[in-house]
Amino acid sequence: MVEYEKVKQIPFGGDYNPEQWPEETWEDDFHLLKKAHINIMTLNVFNWALLQPDETTYCFDKLDKVMELTKKYGVNVCMATSTGAHPAWMARKYPDILRVTADGKRRKYGRRHNACQNSPTYRKYAKALTEQLAARYADCGNIVAWHISNEYGGVCYCENCEKKFRIWLQKKYKTTEELNRVWNLNFWSHTMYDWEDVVVPNLLSEEFEDDGIRTMFQGISLDYARFNSDGMLECFNMEKEIVKKYMPDVPVTTNFMGAYKPIDYQKWGESLDFVSWDNYPNYDDGPAEIAMRHDLMRGLKNGKPFALMEQTPGVSNWQEVCKLKRPGVLRLWSYQAVAHGSDTVMFFQMKQNIGACEKFHTAFINHVGTGETRVFREASELGAELEKKIKGLTLGARTDAKIAIIFDWDNWWAAENSAGPSRRIRYVEEAIQYYKALYEMNYPVDIISVETELSGYQFVIAPLLYMCKTGFDEKVRNFVREGGTFLTTYFSGYVEEHDLVVCGGYPGKLKDILGIWVEESDALPKEEENCFSYGGNKVLARILCDLLHLQGAEALGVYEKDFYAGMPAVTKNKFGQGNAYYVGTRADESFYRGFLKEICDELRIKPAACTNPGIEAAVRKNANGTFLFLLNHNSYETSYTVERPGLELLGGKNYSVGEELKLGAYDVRILLEAE
Amino acid sequence: MVEYEKVKQIPFGGDYNPEQWPEETWEDDFHLLKKAHINIMTLNVFNWALLQPDETTYCFDKLDKVMELTKKYGVNVCMATSTGAHPAWMARKYPDILRVTADGKRRKYGRRHNACQNSPTYRKYAKALTEQLAARYADCGNIVAWHISNEYGGVCYCENCEKKFRIWLQKKYKTTEELNRVWNLNFWSHTMYDWEDVVVPNLLSEEFEDDGIRTMFQGISLDYARFNSDGMLECFNMEKEIVKKYMPDVPVTTNFMGAYKPIDYQKWGESLDFVSWDNYPNYDDGPAEIAMRHDLMRGLKNGKPFALMEQTPGVSNWQEVCKLKRPGVLRLWSYQAVAHGSDTVMFFQMKQNIGACEKFHTAFINHVGTGETRVFREASELGAELEKKIKGLTLGARTDAKIAIIFDWDNWWAAENSAGPSRRIRYVEEAIQYYKALYEMNYPVDIISVETELSGYQFVIAPLLYMCKTGFDEKVRNFVREGGTFLTTYFSGYVEEHDLVVCGGYPGKLKDILGIWVEESDALPKEEENCFSYGGNKVLARILCDLLHLQGAEALGVYEKDFYAGMPAVTKNKFGQGNAYYVGTRADESFYRGFLKEICDELRIKPAACTNPGIEAAVRKNANGTFLFLLNHNSYETSYTVERPGLELLGGKNYSVGEELKLGAYDVRILLEAE
Amino acid sequence: MVEYEKVKQIPFGGDYNPEQWPEETWEDDFHLLKKAHINIMTLNVFNWALLQPDETTYCFDKLDKVMELTKKYGVNVCMATSTGAHPAWMARKYPDILRVTADGKRRKYGRRHNACQNSPTYRKYAKALTEQLAARYADCGNIVAWHISNEYGGVCYCENCEKKFRIWLQKKYKTTEELNRVWNLNFWSHTMYDWEDVVVPNLLSEEFEDDGIRTMFQGISLDYARFNSDGMLECFNMEKEIVKKYMPDVPVTTNFMGAYKPIDYQKWGESLDFVSWDNYPNYDDGPAEIAMRHDLMRGLKNGKPFALMEQTPGVSNWQEVCKLKRPGVLRLWSYQAVAHGSDTVMFFQMKQNIGACEKFHTAFINHVGTGETRVFREASELGAELEKKIKGLTLGARTDAKIAIIFDWDNWWAAENSAGPSRRIRYVEEAIQYYKALYEMNYPVDIISVETELSGYQFVIAPLLYMCKTGFDEKVRNFVREGGTFLTTYFSGYVEEHDLVVCGGYPGKLKDILGIWVEESDALPKEEENCFSYGGNKVLARILCDLLHLQGAEALGVYEKDFYAGMPAVTKNKFGQGNAYYVGTRADESFYRGFLKEICDELRIKPAACTNPGIEAAVRKNANGTFLFLLNHNSYETSYTVERPGLELLGGKNYSVGEELKLGAYDVRILLEAE
Repeated sequence: MVEYEKVKQIPFGGDYNPEQWPEETWEDDFHLLKKAHINIMTLNVFNWALLQPDETTYCFDKLDKVMELTKKYGVNVCMATSTGAHPAWMARKYPDILRVTADGKRRKYGRRHNACQNSPTYRKYAKALTEQLAARYADCGNIVAWHISNEYGGVCYCENCEKKFRIWLQKKYKTTEELNRVWNLNFWSHTMYDWEDVVVPNLLSEEFEDDGIRTMFQGISLDYARFNSDGMLECFNMEKEIVKKYMPDVPVTTNFMGAYKPIDYQKWGESLDFVSWDNYPNYDDGPAEIAMRHDLMRGLKNGKPFALMEQTPGVSNWQEVCKLKRPGVLRLWSYQAVAHGSDTVMFFQMKQNIGACEKFHTAFINHVGTGETRVFREASELGAELEKKIKGLTLGARTDAKIAIIFDWDNWWAAENSAGPSRRIRYVEEAIQYYKALYEMNYPVDIISVETELSGYQFVIAPLLYMCKTGFDEKVRNFVREGGTFLTTYFSGYVEEHDLVVCGGYPGKLKDILGIWVEESDALPKEEENCFSYGGNKVLARILCDLLHLQGAEALGVYEKDFYAGMPAVTKNKFGQGNAYYVGTRADESFYRGFLKEICDELRIKPAACTNPGIEAAVRKNANGTFLFLLNHNSYETSYTVERPGLELLGGKNYSVGEELKLGAYDVRILLEAE
Repeated sequence: MVEYEKVKQIPFGGDYNPEQWPEETWEDDFHLLKKAHINIMTLNVFNWALLQPDETTYCFDKLDKVMELTKKYGVNVCMATSTGAHPAWMARKYPDILRVTADGKRRKYGRRHNACQNSPTYRKYAKALTEQLAARYADCGNIVAWHISNEYGGVCYCENCEKKFRIWLQKKYKTTEELNRVWNLNFWSHTMYDWEDVVVPNLLSEEFEDDGIRTMFQGISLDYARFNSDGMLECFNMEKEIVKKYMPDVPVTTNFMGAYKPIDYQKWGESLDFVSWDNYPNYDDGPAEIAMRHDLMRGLKNGKPFALMEQTPGVSNWQEVCKLKRPGVLRLWSYQAVAHGSDTVMFFQMKQNIGACEKFHTAFINHVGTGETRVFREASELGAELEKKIKGLTLGARTDAKIAIIFDWDNWWAAENSAGPSRRIRYVEEAIQYYKALYEMNYPVDIISVETELSGYQFVIAPLLYMCKTGFDEKVRNFVREGGTFLTTYFSGYVEEHDLVVCGGYPGKLKDILGIWVEESDALPKEEENCFSYGGNKVLARILCDLLHLQGAEALGVYEKDFYAGMPAVTKNKFGQGNAYYVGTRADESFYRGFLKEICDELRIKPAACTNPGIEAAVRKNANGTFLFLLNHNSYETSYTVERPGLELLGGKNYSVGEELKLGAYDVRILLEAE
Repeated sequence: MVEYEKVKQIPFGGDYNPEQWPEETWEDDFHLLKKAHINIMTLNVFNWALLQPDETTYCFDKLDKVMELTKKYGVNVCMATSTGAHPAWMARKYPDILRVTADGKRRKYGRRHNACQNSPTYRKYAKALTEQLAARYADCGNIVAWHISNEYGGVCYCENCEKKFRIWLQKKYKTTEELNRVWNLNFWSHTMYDWEDVVVPNLLSEEFEDDGIRTMFQGISLDYARFNSDGMLECFNMEKEIVKKYMPDVPVTTNFMGAYKPIDYQKWGESLDFVSWDNYPNYDDGPAEIAMRHDLMRGLKNGKPFALMEQTPGVSNWQEVCKLKRPGVLRLWSYQAVAHGSDTVMFFQMKQNIGACEKFHTAFINHVGTGETRVFREASELGAELEKKIKGLTLGARTDAKIAIIFDWDNWWAAENSAGPSRRIRYVEEAIQYYKALYEMNYPVDIISVETELSGYQFVIAPLLYMCKTGFDEKVRNFVREGGTFLTTYFSGYVEEHDLVVCGGYPGKLKDILGIWVEESDALPKEEENCFSYGGNKVLARILCDLLHLQGAEALGVYEKDFYAGMPAVTKNKFGQGNAYYVGTRADESFYRGFLKEICDELRIKPAACTNPGIEAAVRKNANGTFLFLLNHNSYETSYTVERPGLELLGGKNYSVGEELKLGAYDVRILLEAE
């Protein structure tokens, strides 16, 4: 639906699972949901067993009827292929479809996302089902997107995967000599002479559990993570191709999960017509964490708008503690998604189920069965507002960011696989330090991959760039040489793409750009900290303290304690027309704000707006103009002093410069700025 | 022995395992144990391998000799069947007897309670052994009870269990259509077309570990818990029938373990001639916790006295920290059992073993081998006191409670299986809030099942009645309508017996009785709390806060914080002649005392006695009169002001009203009240 | 190399793994390493796969070349046999070589130390490889030691182990009757009639996880620990025999790991020509912990010097937090090893690898590839100092200790296997209380086994002597009777060598020597403590409080709280010419210093020196004189007042009595005392 000509207004709705209810109740549901102003339903997500009761029989009666109702009630359809969970009979007859766990156990039938992506059975029947669906509904007219499978994820370690892993490796490395080199297999006498020597890296071979899964051979585990992600991507592409055969114009997606470690979403990006994702923050995530995930998703297709495919209208069920969304937050977080690039506002789910693990996941129609709930009221008011005030105005709008943060799944995997210097090193946690500081000051930020073109940015931040893949240093070198500003951190530049250390001193190929040499790094236990001076303040230093030497750079702050007192903690290097910064430790939250602001000021990068604390400002632009989203994450009223005149879309009032725009608790305003 | 005509005085003694010792030492043991005034021994609990060295050979020589000694020394026998642990040869030859773990691993021989309850091998040989035993000792004259197996427990997931589970389901649900309905299998495409599609719910299928075992399909896991408990009950009944064939008059039991989650003791109750149980509190359990378990056991057969089958005279061995029972506590806790309905005072064990895991579990005869120990002295003094002062006086006495707390294994299983709203919800922990408050004020309480007739009670409390089984609401409705007072809490009334939500608003079918509608519930993390006003005090609210609407009820307290400030936290509804209370959150300990006292006062329910803090008062009655037990759980002396005149049995002194009765540290007094 | 006539100066160097690097880089490495003054390399530790690409092919080309270089550069070789990690092809073709885990899973190829010690495949090929190596390099001239396999460790539970365990048992116990007796198998009906009834004790049989692995049958698990350790010892001896056939004069070792629980190093001691070990303290270990491990290793061969085979020059890689060794600590800890009996200063490793899990383990040549690092500088300065100042002076020197602490693997295993009285009982932790107090006062201490002759000592401490093996009590009795001072603690004397309790009162056969009877023991939770009086001070009592009766002994301190207030906590018994002390609880750290000093003073035992806090003093003697090592573990400068005149070897200055000897932060001085 994202960028599909038939979608003229912002899609509002979400997952509906009528197969769990008697047919006679369906029309009542449509009736009620239309009152909530929904215009789209995601259908058929977990329907395989009903659609296909055995190898050769297909049964579309119920789905046909639901499709009739969607047409009757004027509801568009995001059509899923149901291959996210296979039927029980399939597992009973073809056990190869069942995954094998990290400790080598063949699973029995159960849960969901339960199929081995490399199972011939799975691929055969998934393909067949998709073909049936695509052929049958090719001409139905109201399918505005296809939703392949559901939340791809997990890892399988079965013998089919093992065999396919060997083929994948052979294709990549050609010879066992090269395999021995890239995995450094002469270490611990692992030298392999035959592709059959390769076994899956799991808890029975190279891996072990110790505050998460760790590995003895980082290179093997890294390649297995890539292979595992690739196998699911093959499944996605297999289904997508079939759909495209029948409905070449309807865009195809699958729903992602934000910063989800097992799947390299950046590698998947080009295969999707548009990115969609499910936003389920933990109860203690702040708005910055959510915003970062939106921006990560937006970055997967170079800034193209994405779809918010799922969010809960109230609570999700699986958290340890299911805290209610406060009144207004359903609306606030919906607009936050739009502010960061979503062209939809969609939910899981339309009607709450009555049995099994998601029965306490909130829906538009909850167990009470009526519209007389806070959740229904908030949802339907939002539906009405979107229908009347937003319409299709924001569709296709883009975010114009001068700052980019690099995020890379290989780096995530590799940095956290590392044995030494510290298990306290966390990839996403480090990235969020930088993101959050910029977010709180309302700087638009793109989250990009190492493949993304850098030239459009003024300032590129690469937190924990542990792995500097071949060629990336040259890309950075050119970027800085031509005037760009680059920043990276401790535990960067160590290895190339196979997790082999680049000798010659850390941070490897980034040394000349940064003008430093990191000789050693001191890992700090949780209970210890160092500190460094910066801008007259004393800043705490935690997790890792690099002991570095200036080789052209200047020190912006030096450690104040221990035997490396006086050594630089933060540096700046003039390189060509640009500058390269290095932050050799984990600092206080407050440091990042001041430090990054100084750099932005120097670069004359402007924030979206200057706001009171807790008000997020974000900008999107399209042919309709520039939209300034103002999101009050505070539980109290506050206000914004208008900087550029415009029409506030939700209230329908024009504001001029300097005017106070009041925002209630969790309130949202959108200024369509006068050009 | 409980209600067996041959038992005229309170049984005192316990487990004796002579098979671990040379025969020539046995008579010395009897000699010493008689000095401790024991009159009963539990024999033959773990003797299978010695009784049956192979498939066809039985060998009773040793047991015969021990039985001779019991007669010679005038000791009654509680005869166990030895089927609690099978021999090693059986496991070697018939591996089907070995259980399969939750993650699908066939166990090897080892530990105890090691047999799959559904193993044909186990049933065949258990039956044969019981037949041999019952036939051989049918006429021995001093067996006063049979003790089937030992502490039934655990769960098996083997293929025999899987097959039998399918049969169990087929019998219960008849068709796969009904199975699909009750388990809501259309969810996540689990629809089953064949009984063979069913697999055991374990860590390889629907379950997973996350702070305990959790499940994706609550209905499946719930039925498996029932099936697992039922399978062991079948084993019990199989053995019981054989025993009854030979000794129809001797009562049959098996030893329970208090609030033990895997076995639905309430369902077992009617199969036992009397309930017996093993009281092994954790070192940090208070007297209320122990008392509650006694009352739970008493409730299994509608208030019929039970047997305290085991307790340690000193320390048990398996706790993380084996804290000594303080001087006097052996006696105090023995009388506490009697006060709550026990007709025995029995121990594990008579003689301490020298090898394997229980070697540091205290016995009457400890490793030192003499009677010159504190434990032996305390035990023998108690034995003498029971023999001389209590005799058979208290046998058969009943507790007359006007207050009942409902406890239900299905609710326990289902409430803690739930995904959402909070993993902090704990069934027993919630029940104990109410029990403890009543206990500390000395109100007699019955712990009853949902099957128990309510009409005899004035006040029925159903904490966390998450599952309201079909018909139970009507039972409550009638009870309240006719003048009863009912109280339930947050997370009640959600589902029916298959864990399917009852639509129409929470608390489901209890809505009209309580006069409320719970629209939402806010789960609170450990570090957060709300509060509500009650009786002029501010009470903390934790774990879950219901957001409820009055539909006839009145609010007794309202939340003071957050967006639901002002909404009712505690309500009271007049319904028919009675009242229905609702406590929509977890409150402070102090709240429960005040709140429940107010209700009791209104209902004119009287406590057993008014005592100083730390003195427990409990009442039992039989034809010999009314016994008021006064138990000083304090480590210091205190006193009780006599309320009703009577003879203090242990001191042999008469007390009149208003007289001070002194109780030393951990002391016990029993007033036989003048009629 | 330890006591090999060709070794005339202290070996300095360590592990070098050229097989991980291109041949053309090797000579550069030698060049640089010679600058660091290394004189020895450990080679061929993990080289099996390269040496033997298949069953019948051996390939020594590379190793030959490396050996040529060692000769060219005058470097001695510690030659490893490479059997610490088998090749991948071997696992693929002969799966019996793969271990089975505690929960019964056959491992796949991976990690290291990956071979089942009882695998016929492993033994066959390990033997063949060793023969090839020994034959080939017998005449090379510069091999000064053989290093069999590497860090033997772990446990296997495969069917080969199970079968061999039965044979091991049959040899030890002859009949199943005796097996039933020693394992007390009549308990829980475990009686075995056939050796085939025995299964390995693991998580599928007798063991379970609960804050570590625990067991239901201590006797079985204890024998399995012995069997497991013995199996690896067989492997060691198998290889050693072959080496000796070719090079009878070159000493043979394998590298131990300090206080490593799975291997009974004391049983291995006599099989090694010299002991060597790898010193990898945790980041929070203090110098006393390290010193104790050195002394434990020295004790394995009755005080014979050992080799420090490995230590990291900077950080090891596997710790949660890899804290840098502070400047000077590399030197300090190297000398600490020498002070405690090491005749080498060796490191892992010479050159840092670039891939897999040890890539962040520091080396002499780090990733930067130059000698311009702090680590290289510190290492080479130390190399120079050893070469010029120490030479071979300290080789063969002995420690003369009057105090011995008994350490016994059987006791470690058995005491921590125990179910009751407290899981807080920790064997090594208890020993360190006594060691540390003595260490801080600079008393030389031997750590000895229960087999060691006691007559040379004045004071023998046996912490937690839970298991008093047959005959050991008589040894202690004679020792004390003839004037020795003996001390033991709570949880001592309970069982004999099969973990069967010795009846008649605790501490069993030690009762008469100690003059006490321990009737009961009160286990204290973490949050509780008692206290006792000692020397006018109040001392906290934790973990376990024995309730003991004096039977000849006198009380040195009595409990002050709880019902056992007034009972003795610490006792002294005159027995024959000597004294026997008993400490019935875990006391404060400060107690041990005062208490032990009093005993030492009474026995006129002198410390190595009286030093300021944080300065460790240790003495070794050989024909060259008496060496007093002074080690400043403080991060600041301090000084030592010379007690005996001598030449300070490192500074080359003579000191007379009373003179102040300054020690900088982490500094070391060695006084060669004038005779």
